[in-house]
Amino acid sequence: MFVPCMVSLYLGTADIKAFFVSEAITVTVALSMIFIRKEVPDRLSVRDVFLLTVLAWCLVCLFGALPFILSHTVSNVTDAIFESVSAVTTTGATVITGLDSLARDILLWRSMMQWIGGLGIVALGAAVLPFLRIGGMRLFRAESSDFSEKTLPHTRRYLVRLLMVYMIISMACTVAYVIAGMTPFDAINHAMTTVSTGGFSTHDASLAFFDSVAVESVAMVFMLIAAVPFVMFLPLFSGKLGTLKPDAQVRSMLTSYAAIIVLLVWWLDWDDQSSMLEWIRYSAFHVISIGTTTGYVSTDYASWGSFSAVVFFFLTFVGGCSGSTSGGIKIFRFKIAYILFRETLQRLLHPNAVLMRSMEGHRVTDDIVASVVAFALAFACTVGVVAILLAGAGNDFVTSFSAASTAVANVGPGIGDVVGPVSNFSSLNDASKWIISFAMLLGRLEIFTVLIVLTPAFWRG
Amino acid sequence: MFVPCMVSLYLGTADIKAFFVSEAITVTVALSMIFIRKEVPDRLSVRDVFLLTVLAWCLVCLFGALPFILSHTVSNVTDAIFESVSAVTTTGATVITGLDSLARDILLWRSMMQWIGGLGIVALGAAVLPFLRIGGMRLFRAESSDFSEKTLPHTRRYLVRLLMVYMIISMACTVAYVIAGMTPFDAINHAMTTVSTGGFSTHDASLAFFDSVAVESVAMVFMLIAAVPFVMFLPLFSGKLGTLKPDAQVRSMLTSYAAIIVLLVWWLDWDDQSSMLEWIRYSAFHVISIGTTTGYVSTDYASWGSFSAVVFFFLTFVGGCSGSTSGGIKIFRFKIAYILFRETLQRLLHPNAVLMRSMEGHRVTDDIVASVVAFALAFACTVGVVAILLAGAGNDFVTSFSAASTAVANVGPGIGDVVGPVSNFSSLNDASKWIISFAMLLGRLEIFTVLIVLTPAFWRG
Repeated sequence: MFVPCMVSLYLGTADIKAFFVSEAITVTVALSMIFIRKEVPDRLSVRDVFLLTVLAWCLVCLFGALPFILSHTVSNVTDAIFESVSAVTTTGATVITGLDSLARDILLWRSMMQWIGGLGIVALGAAVLPFLRIGGMRLFRAESSDFSEKTLPHTRRYLVRLLMVYMIISMACTVAYVIAGMTPFDAINHAMTTVSTGGFSTHDASLAFFDSVAVESVAMVFMLIAAVPFVMFLPLFSGKLGTLKPDAQVRSMLTSYAAIIVLLVWWLDWDDQSSMLEWIRYSAFHVISIGTTTGYVSTDYASWGSFSAVVFFFLTFVGGCSGSTSGGIKIFRFKIAYILFRETLQRLLHPNAVLMRSMEGHRVTDDIVASVVAFALAFACTVGVVAILLAGAGNDFVTSFSAASTAVANVGPGIGDVVGPVSNFSSLNDASKWIISFAMLLGRLEIFTVLIVLTPAFWRG
Repeated sequence: MFVPCMVSLYLGTADIKAFFVSEAITVTVALSMIFIRKEVPDRLSVRDVFLLTVLAWCLVCLFGALPFILSHTVSNVTDAIFESVSAVTTTGATVITGLDSLARDILLWRSMMQWIGGLGIVALGAAVLPFLRIGGMRLFRAESSDFSEKTLPHTRRYLVRLLMVYMIISMACTVAYVIAGMTPFDAINHAMTTVSTGGFSTHDASLAFFDSVAVESVAMVFMLIAAVPFVMFLPLFSGKLGTLKPDAQVRSMLTSYAAIIVLLVWWLDWDDQSSMLEWIRYSAFHVISIGTTTGYVSTDYASWGSFSAVVFFFLTFVGGCSGSTSGGIKIFRFKIAYILFRETLQRLLHPNAVLMRSMEGHRVTDDIVASVVAFALAFACTVGVVAILLAGAGNDFVTSFSAASTAVANVGPGIGDVVGPVSNFSSLNDASKWIISFAMLLGRLEIFTVLIVLTPAFWRG
């Protein structure tokens, strides 16, 4: 909060009080927690890591909401929490209207929270989730991600490098946005929400405000970079640029996006070459924006008819690569599902064949398949339950489904009149906002991390 | 076709020509096929069984469409095929309006096709699918379902008994409907579409035509019986009535339905006790009708608001028990999904625990889990692809999704204005009708049976 605080001071806006008070509260609570803590255990148990992860995210959401409520940017606690959770989980759904005239420190705070959320998820994905065996992520476990004391320095260096990659990409993105024609303030904000695949903007119209192919191109490139496993960039540190090549996961992601773009462009009604180029521009931008779970909007893609609405609905679930900041089900899980599917067909024809599952040279063991499948089922059930709850809270069929999936997948905009690309979540009632906030948190922490803390077995013994 | 032909003769309707011609064509083709056949193999290979199953269903759908087109009940081939596929797959979606004034022989033909479809699926589920290892059905394989010559007489006796159970239930249902106040003709027709969980009616208003609690109660009881594994009734033949008790699958089904009924009644707005009783009546009827994938309608449940619309949307997927005539994903697969889900949570807390999966005393092996999971994924993908295709054919978002799921799950009515409980599939365009016809067939044959025949590997070698 120190940064927007300084910005407040510099700009002399009225929100300075809000940030000072927020900072004071946060620091006070943090210090008291440090003072009242008991002895620190030598080693964290699995339970500790689960609880710490969930609590860390909840606390950041809670304290992150303070500036919104204290600056009267939003009128009630529900909206403040919603905006904060949407930011930290890098979802990017907003309840604030009039962003263009909003105080700059609040705008910066929203973007920063997404950036911090992205940072957190990179660290979580690299070091914590594989250790916790969540959703088949172990397939990508670096040898060093072990929480024993012996390997801790190694893990720490690995994490520091990942976070440096994150910062370098953020800076490169800022520079690129400035070159593309953004003001430095807009560039900084959008860079932070691009690399975190968050999607908050400093304008109500999102990226449609700029109406610039250059800006959209920069956004597309960096959204794709943000959806790539950050581990891929580590060879940069040893100067081995030659080893910097896209792995199978990245190739699958790019192929999937390209296929969907071709499908949309082929389908959409274009009369001449110039309108075709326009369709390509908008299709490519939104497929990448929704696919990587960023959620920037450059035109009202919901007005393209029901075919694209259904395509974008499914695209919501796709997501990027594991180890990136993107959400959703993620490409590698679809690949494992495909392997399973192909294997089932083979087994039907050759019941006694011995089949080896492998992906990118790694053996896909039965328990990795089981956890991927459990994740997919949990994802589907979560979307289903959230949709039922949202319908129960009084929303229509399309809004319930779309809001549920866009929240669990951490995308941002959905489809339909209420939560579509040109609308805003502010018109939803309080119950819906709480349901969606919880759904965003569930989705961001790969569902099981939150669910397990809510089971009685977790607290037993 | 002989039966409606006789009915035509007796009633002296104009449709008699249609049935005579249809029968002549069918018999001619059948006889030519018998004459031109090559040597019959001693033993059927796995490929033969797959191909036979798919071809049998397609041929019945094709020849079953003849009376519709020849009697001018429908105006084009698309509608005739749609109605025929919807009947044989026991889906129950119809494109015919004015059922109340339709010739009786055509009405009887529609109901008979559903009844034959139900018969076929009982035989398929008991003897063919477990042998083909489709979708984890092997869990319920009777020891005798082996296609070797040695056990063939045993298998045949087993099948004959199952089909006798099917007929006895059909007759009991007819009698019950007559007692409940139906005319004998209505009773025969509805009995055939109840035990097959098909859902065709002789009235446009479906069961709302009768507006009778007695009729609805009979329907509810026999829809539930039709959704139970028919193997459960086999002890009747040995006179051991005491062993006739619901297994775990049936108990889960009843519990699930009861829970959803309670949820709906609790949610719906009732002012006094009499309106509450009315809600209970309609909720119970439609939860059972949609849950068992029958698809009878006794009131416009789509007008109950978006909460019930979302609930009914999900209910579409549930289905009944395996080995019954019902479609959908089926209860035992949800149980296996739940076991997998619970196991994942346990494994997160105790990574090295050795867990045994079992269900109803059977061990749930890894390959059963894999085939259940592959089925669930295939089901979800099929619904997704069909929804995209339907949106591409020009349908709105809700119609695309609802028609896709109601078709793949073989339910019948969906939600929304176009395919909802009080509407009819006739307003859809031809492309949509073909897509839905294919989806119904895919769903009825448990997806993989059809998919595998469409793979190049199937035809190789």
